[in-house]
Amino acid sequence: MNSFSGFRVNERSRIENTLSHLPCTYLIRDDVQPPFMHIRVEGVRGLPLIQQGDDLPALISERIEFSDGDILCIASSVYSKAKGYTKRLTEITPTPRALRIAERTREDPRFIQAVLDASTEVLLEYPFVLSEVPSGHIGVRAGVDQSNIENGMVIFLPPDPMAAAAEVREDIRRLTGQSIGVIITDTCGRSFRRGQTGHAIGWSGMTAIRDFRGDIDLFGHVLKITEEAVVDEIAGFANFVMGESNNGVPAVVFRNCGNWEGHDNLYFRKEEDILRKLLEDSG
Amino acid sequence: MNSFSGFRVNERSRIENTLSHLPCTYLIRDDVQPPFMHIRVEGVRGLPLIQQGDDLPALISERIEFSDGDILCIASSVYSKAKGYTKRLTEITPTPRALRIAERTREDPRFIQAVLDASTEVLLEYPFVLSEVPSGHIGVRAGVDQSNIENGMVIFLPPDPMAAAAEVREDIRRLTGQSIGVIITDTCGRSFRRGQTGHAIGWSGMTAIRDFRGDIDLFGHVLKITEEAVVDEIAGFANFVMGESNNGVPAVVFRNCGNWEGHDNLYFRKEEDILRKLLEDSG
Repeated sequence: MNSFSGFRVNERSRIENTLSHLPCTYLIRDDVQPPFMHIRVEGVRGLPLIQQGDDLPALISERIEFSDGDILCIASSVYSKAKGYTKRLTEITPTPRALRIAERTREDPRFIQAVLDASTEVLLEYPFVLSEVPSGHIGVRAGVDQSNIENGMVIFLPPDPMAAAAEVREDIRRLTGQSIGVIITDTCGRSFRRGQTGHAIGWSGMTAIRDFRGDIDLFGHVLKITEEAVVDEIAGFANFVMGESNNGVPAVVFRNCGNWEGHDNLYFRKEEDILRKLLEDSG
Repeated sequence: MNSFSGFRVNERSRIENTLSHLPCTYLIRDDVQPPFMHIRVEGVRGLPLIQQGDDLPALISERIEFSDGDILCIASSVYSKAKGYTKRLTEITPTPRALRIAERTREDPRFIQAVLDASTEVLLEYPFVLSEVPSGHIGVRAGVDQSNIENGMVIFLPPDPMAAAAEVREDIRRLTGQSIGVIITDTCGRSFRRGQTGHAIGWSGMTAIRDFRGDIDLFGHVLKITEEAVVDEIAGFANFVMGESNNGVPAVVFRNCGNWEGHDNLYFRKEEDILRKLLEDSG
């Protein structure tokens, strides 16, 4: 095996025999090749129930040892509780719109009002509210949550989840001296498939998208499908470890994930989003 | 900490002080609590380029040691190549419909014909074909792939990916004596978010959905959102390890993932799928 111009070359006589019209090489770009000997994924155990004012990065750092390059995933609900992004339903007065929607969805109109307050644009009202929040994320009920909190309270998504991830990252660096990546996660439904999965709503210390543009596949073609939403793949598996009921594990650390190049344009622009356009046209 | 009727109880005086109206306990169901001390995720390195007739389970088993309960994820493209679910474009004659669609999408009409042949129902023709395949999966271009294969060839998804997963699982059991879970993965786009992620299209030895029905959250509420699509969360992270160009790592093993209860109804029924209905109405 030798190396030239960023590619590793693995000559394979078997391919040579069967694919004589192709360059008989096995091309992999060195700079997108992560050191995947094995990745370790650890739930942060023993965290107390988080309450407003808690120092979440400190509580996590006390319970797990970080190394440079680790990725820490935190459930948005827990971040929001620590920061007090919560509200009592008794403090909310529903508008006529919230009353109208709540009558159809059979939900508490004050809860629907909280959802509307958290939304910049409502894409669907029934059978559930689907809306965009300021960060660009589109989710059911704007991510407003009534579980894992006291009765009569709701938890909002962090209003600026990118800043939240950057802040946690900086806090961990200050507390431990380690430079890690941070992803703030939420659970969301999907099109065509039942069940929720974890998604990234904020991230820092990595790009959301791993961009394979210009990369070459095993047969020498330039890849057409060039964008992989790696933050969502990591957030999804973090959610698997957390469990939907959180199981007391709202933070998960990934070790040895390597690094990648790409960009942060995770959300479609309005005009390029086919399903969004269909939803808006049908509304 | 003690245990009664399937719940672990962790008394917390801090919660007791602040939430005196609630039972002052921290409830976690033992039987959905996996042994997440740490999960290890390993790419299967050193596989040759797979060709028709290759014994994929044997090639994988020679390169990695399995233990009971491991989960093996395999890229559908590699499974299909081993089984010969491929076709030469020169063997395909496009129908008028394929010609019409290909003119709009600026793709090879023979490729579009392959996509139509693989589809049971086309939901969208432009700007890309979105269709359902016999297994119930809905994907762009029916998952037909022109990358990682010789020029002029296309790879189809396995026609029965559930049977494919069961067969690999049985082969590994025969070869190694170990009882593992198997997921066949494909990469798919999503609504509202740019980039592809790994999804499960076939699975065996586990349920697709982890069902939290009847579970109780940290504050004693019965969970409303009860279904987590764990096979997609695992497939997504497997895809992260594989890399889109496959990087020579088309198989990934997860160790120590625990187990869960649930069901296999991963795909919405037609009548309950809001986005599908919108697509059909707009067509």
